[in-house]
Amino acid sequence: MLSFECDYNKGAHRKILERLLETNEEAVPGYGNDCYCESAKEKIRKACDCKDAEIFFLAGGTQTNMLVVSTMLKPYEGVVAATTGHVSVHEAGAIEHSGHKVLEIPGHEGKMDAKELERYLERYWNDSSHEHMVFPGMVYISHPTEYGTLYTKAELEALSHVCGTYKIPLYLDGARLGYGLMSKNTDVTLPMIAKYCDVFYIGGTKVGALCGEAVVFTRHNMPAHFLTMVKQQGALLAKGRLLGVQFDTLFTDDLYCQISRQAIEMAERLKALFQEKGYPFFLDSPTNQQFIILENEEMERLQKQVRFDIWEPYDETHTVVRFATSYATVVEDIENLRKVIESI
Amino acid sequence: MLSFECDYNKGAHRKILERLLETNEEAVPGYGNDCYCESAKEKIRKACDCKDAEIFFLAGGTQTNMLVVSTMLKPYEGVVAATTGHVSVHEAGAIEHSGHKVLEIPGHEGKMDAKELERYLERYWNDSSHEHMVFPGMVYISHPTEYGTLYTKAELEALSHVCGTYKIPLYLDGARLGYGLMSKNTDVTLPMIAKYCDVFYIGGTKVGALCGEAVVFTRHNMPAHFLTMVKQQGALLAKGRLLGVQFDTLFTDDLYCQISRQAIEMAERLKALFQEKGYPFFLDSPTNQQFIILENEEMERLQKQVRFDIWEPYDETHTVVRFATSYATVVEDIENLRKVIESI
Amino acid sequence: MLSFECDYNKGAHRKILERLLETNEEAVPGYGNDCYCESAKEKIRKACDCKDAEIFFLAGGTQTNMLVVSTMLKPYEGVVAATTGHVSVHEAGAIEHSGHKVLEIPGHEGKMDAKELERYLERYWNDSSHEHMVFPGMVYISHPTEYGTLYTKAELEALSHVCGTYKIPLYLDGARLGYGLMSKNTDVTLPMIAKYCDVFYIGGTKVGALCGEAVVFTRHNMPAHFLTMVKQQGALLAKGRLLGVQFDTLFTDDLYCQISRQAIEMAERLKALFQEKGYPFFLDSPTNQQFIILENEEMERLQKQVRFDIWEPYDETHTVVRFATSYATVVEDIENLRKVIESI
Amino acid sequence: MLSFECDYNKGAHRKILERLLETNEEAVPGYGNDCYCESAKEKIRKACDCKDAEIFFLAGGTQTNMLVVSTMLKPYEGVVAATTGHVSVHEAGAIEHSGHKVLEIPGHEGKMDAKELERYLERYWNDSSHEHMVFPGMVYISHPTEYGTLYTKAELEALSHVCGTYKIPLYLDGARLGYGLMSKNTDVTLPMIAKYCDVFYIGGTKVGALCGEAVVFTRHNMPAHFLTMVKQQGALLAKGRLLGVQFDTLFTDDLYCQISRQAIEMAERLKALFQEKGYPFFLDSPTNQQFIILENEEMERLQKQVRFDIWEPYDETHTVVRFATSYATVVEDIENLRKVIESI
Repeated sequence: MLSFECDYNKGAHRKILERLLETNEEAVPGYGNDCYCESAKEKIRKACDCKDAEIFFLAGGTQTNMLVVSTMLKPYEGVVAATTGHVSVHEAGAIEHSGHKVLEIPGHEGKMDAKELERYLERYWNDSSHEHMVFPGMVYISHPTEYGTLYTKAELEALSHVCGTYKIPLYLDGARLGYGLMSKNTDVTLPMIAKYCDVFYIGGTKVGALCGEAVVFTRHNMPAHFLTMVKQQGALLAKGRLLGVQFDTLFTDDLYCQISRQAIEMAERLKALFQEKGYPFFLDSPTNQQFIILENEEMERLQKQVRFDIWEPYDETHTVVRFATSYATVVEDIENLRKVIESI
Repeated sequence: MLSFECDYNKGAHRKILERLLETNEEAVPGYGNDCYCESAKEKIRKACDCKDAEIFFLAGGTQTNMLVVSTMLKPYEGVVAATTGHVSVHEAGAIEHSGHKVLEIPGHEGKMDAKELERYLERYWNDSSHEHMVFPGMVYISHPTEYGTLYTKAELEALSHVCGTYKIPLYLDGARLGYGLMSKNTDVTLPMIAKYCDVFYIGGTKVGALCGEAVVFTRHNMPAHFLTMVKQQGALLAKGRLLGVQFDTLFTDDLYCQISRQAIEMAERLKALFQEKGYPFFLDSPTNQQFIILENEEMERLQKQVRFDIWEPYDETHTVVRFATSYATVVEDIENLRKVIESI
Repeated sequence: MLSFECDYNKGAHRKILERLLETNEEAVPGYGNDCYCESAKEKIRKACDCKDAEIFFLAGGTQTNMLVVSTMLKPYEGVVAATTGHVSVHEAGAIEHSGHKVLEIPGHEGKMDAKELERYLERYWNDSSHEHMVFPGMVYISHPTEYGTLYTKAELEALSHVCGTYKIPLYLDGARLGYGLMSKNTDVTLPMIAKYCDVFYIGGTKVGALCGEAVVFTRHNMPAHFLTMVKQQGALLAKGRLLGVQFDTLFTDDLYCQISRQAIEMAERLKALFQEKGYPFFLDSPTNQQFIILENEEMERLQKQVRFDIWEPYDETHTVVRFATSYATVVEDIENLRKVIESI
Repeated sequence: MLSFECDYNKGAHRKILERLLETNEEAVPGYGNDCYCESAKEKIRKACDCKDAEIFFLAGGTQTNMLVVSTMLKPYEGVVAATTGHVSVHEAGAIEHSGHKVLEIPGHEGKMDAKELERYLERYWNDSSHEHMVFPGMVYISHPTEYGTLYTKAELEALSHVCGTYKIPLYLDGARLGYGLMSKNTDVTLPMIAKYCDVFYIGGTKVGALCGEAVVFTRHNMPAHFLTMVKQQGALLAKGRLLGVQFDTLFTDDLYCQISRQAIEMAERLKALFQEKGYPFFLDSPTNQQFIILENEEMERLQKQVRFDIWEPYDETHTVVRFATSYATVVEDIENLRKVIESI
């Protein structure tokens, strides 16, 4: 069965597993105090061009969002996010479970508009009863967004400016950051993200690792005793090396970019295939997730030979579906998909 | 200064204070185990025509919402509310602080539409990734709503039916319940509310008491060990008599209705006055809160002689303001308001 | 039936109710922004000889402990308390519900020993794995303690010194503070408490009010946006005047001391009575709670004519019981108790 | 440098890494819905002789304790544990962070006594104010304990009996379960644990895995929607295969026992070495952790050539230290340790 349902259906990039094997017998300290974590942090600081960045490795995306948001917010604050943001919808209420409200503002193909954000914040602070409301204490964006779309440099800068004016941190969820950075249609680089964001994470799980995300605090703003709070929330791995070795490998010889570039190239081919065959797109995604509108009966026929993700109903007779590529997608997969599409 | 800014700016109805004085020297058990709480509960059961109702007295509205929602929901559940619901906006994130998401659906002059609720629930349960989303575990409505509007019997019945279908409780916030029941334009009675709702509260603080709300569980569904959870959330008064005596008085000789009727009659006069003077209304409220659109400069002149509540900006040059009446509003207050309006 | 079971079994001191009646018809702002709260705060600042004290009124003791502890601690911190502390045992886990551990150290007749506290803190900070443990972030003491005992000035000073050394706040639970201040055997005054403690509360509920506690922050250390967090935890009364008027009355013409002195004098008589009759005391309490050891059968006979509190089993055949006096106890009550004791 | 500081200082047993490589390119569903998780569960059910056991894989021990305790307890309940229990001391307050109190009773070399537990529960339920206290809702034990000691079959049965009487679940933390099962001095088997405990976990991280613990619910008592709560607490791995493949390998060809037996054999040699050299033991541990009392100056000399764990001060001049063995410890390591000891 052809497999385009997500970017986390295979194991890890081979180099990562090999490196885990090579380093396996060395005795190192636990809880992230090992040499691999240190080395990985140093490489990430360089890649971000942010020499004072404080970095912490965590196991997954929801865990990372929960920890960053809950430890950076005051108890009376909430996090502003687009209505379609991952923290708003698909994390089973992890933010609320930590005691904080997700303050939703409209998303535009997954993106937050800086002007709308500014109006929201302005209105909040002008409301005479704002002390009875949740304070907006952080802004959450994802890049790429849940719809595969990307912010431009100018858009990121504008959001960063609004956050600066209101003195609240801008947090970027980079679960699929590599695919954003390697997109053909972006003017955003990793150092820019480090410059415009107060905190962000570099996704590993969906970009070729077994598990793992690297949180980057860019302004000497890692919450005091972050490690203890990570432990308290059950997120501190005893064998922290598992994350250190993986990120050290991902940031050696440009592997993170190479993995991402492969997925982007395959996504481009997949997009071209659907365009060629005349399928309508739900929106124009420049990254590894492509959203196609399928007629329901055709969708069912396709499902018999290809795995893809049912996104949402489009109308009575059509459905939005998602095809995703990853480091493991190869040209042959796209060619096989072509054959299937042509046959049904 | 004339005072229409809210319905909690004065103390309590005189009869309540007198009764507190009369009963003051009796030694009674603490924590709500006194004879006044018992007597009040019995009178409320009768007024609701719900002889098995379980009743608990709490001090305020946010406290009540927080306790009802957090003790009735499972950890993975959230509460569905209109975007304008008090729990969504004006409780400083109390629900989220208790670990639960407020799942917002559109409000229509403060009201939730049963069809929209049904579509929301249907869509949630059909979503293949619903296990990664917050489960809708309760429906919250307010009656009167935050905009003074009221559900009809048919609307309440429809909401109750949808909740029954999805097996989730319907919870009615009755902070101003008396004003709803005594409105000239309602076909809803207290027994109907007890019939259609799984749990609701009868507001005291905004209807003539010093403090206090009576939560009514109508289906033998008071959470086990509710008292301990009330204690755990800091809401158990040692001198529970303070609430018992007040509610016992409110439900003696129809005082609760009498207080509410007085406020409604004054609201009707106030409404007539603004209509007569040609002021536009933001919406048509049948209860004790009236929402008027004022031109900004006129508003400022009026503010020098009358206290009212700034609700929200209407447009560049106009503002929505709220005038509220209470048990303590008298005909003379309305006549004085007429003089002020005519003079400015 | 004679009634010595607790100090919250009657209503409020008459002057408080009278003042509520007198001020009832004035329209004042809600949520504690009224003139009575302001006036009460000013009087308390004077009584504490602490002109910059920040003061907030809350409804009850558990609520106050929960709010002070949870808003002053960082997420990774816990509060150190004696094993017998109210927060450790009798608040249904309110502190833990707010996410924080109560770090217990031994109590000595309810009191914490400064040297033991110092050793505890020293040992914690010397533990190489302390980052995996809960940080001691505050010290909680009660005065009078749960056993009616009192700290001396020197003991308070020593605790304050240890807290200062470790830079953690000292918090004093004064649910029955008046009885401590008016005890014949104390060298501790209210200004001293304000001097040695970073935060404390002056109990109203158990010292003649209907409800209410006054939290006093003595070092410009009231947590930012405390009101919003009070609202968020369901503890903000709409009619804040209820608390303001009560405390304003309690701190007018020395009423708080007068109420407390009455209870102390009655406790002295009660103590003398039990001593005269040869009853053993569980411990020597200088305040309004007296702990007597009763033979079980005698206890049962006594229970038929007098209400008192069963404290804890003493041995197979004896039980520790508590007799409490309050503002409402009069000489006649003690004389009636004498008759009962002599008759059984 | 010789390395005996813990049992998680190396990577994973080679067979686990090899199996991760072998299965790496297969596309499988995420979030634990893969064939490896299924296969591992089936093998664990067999090993436990509990065919209906419900099993869930999590990443680490604190995470597991936090999830099991917080999802099985009611909000008003706490978990009873020995004062030295991992949940009481070394999890940074994870249980309290989830809102629940750890109710401590004395530990005896890390173990809980069934009689003391019974007295504790009996006394709680007889306390007339128990509704103001935290309800004991679960019993937590560790096996091996934090001191390496083990319960006997009779002791486990007695604890299970007390829990059954009071209808609260018995939860066993098996972070190092393998070492307990393979000890020379135990009459406890895995099926017995499944029989006597309502829920327990089989530790992977400290028994040869990269990460991972297998929670086993033995009474059809896995909390409803456990997966959603795992997601909500940030503990659901997208690539659940990482845990599935590891546990499938550990429970193939008896690898889990083989790993544990190796560590136990090395621990026996290490124990014999210290006995032979006349070192006093802090207590008699039958598992892979050995606690030795060292004179402080000797300890410092030893630290220059061997890594071990400083446990706690013994007296002014001595310290308790811990030596741990693991799957990766070999005879040569013990022989090298002998040389070091003989040389200093």
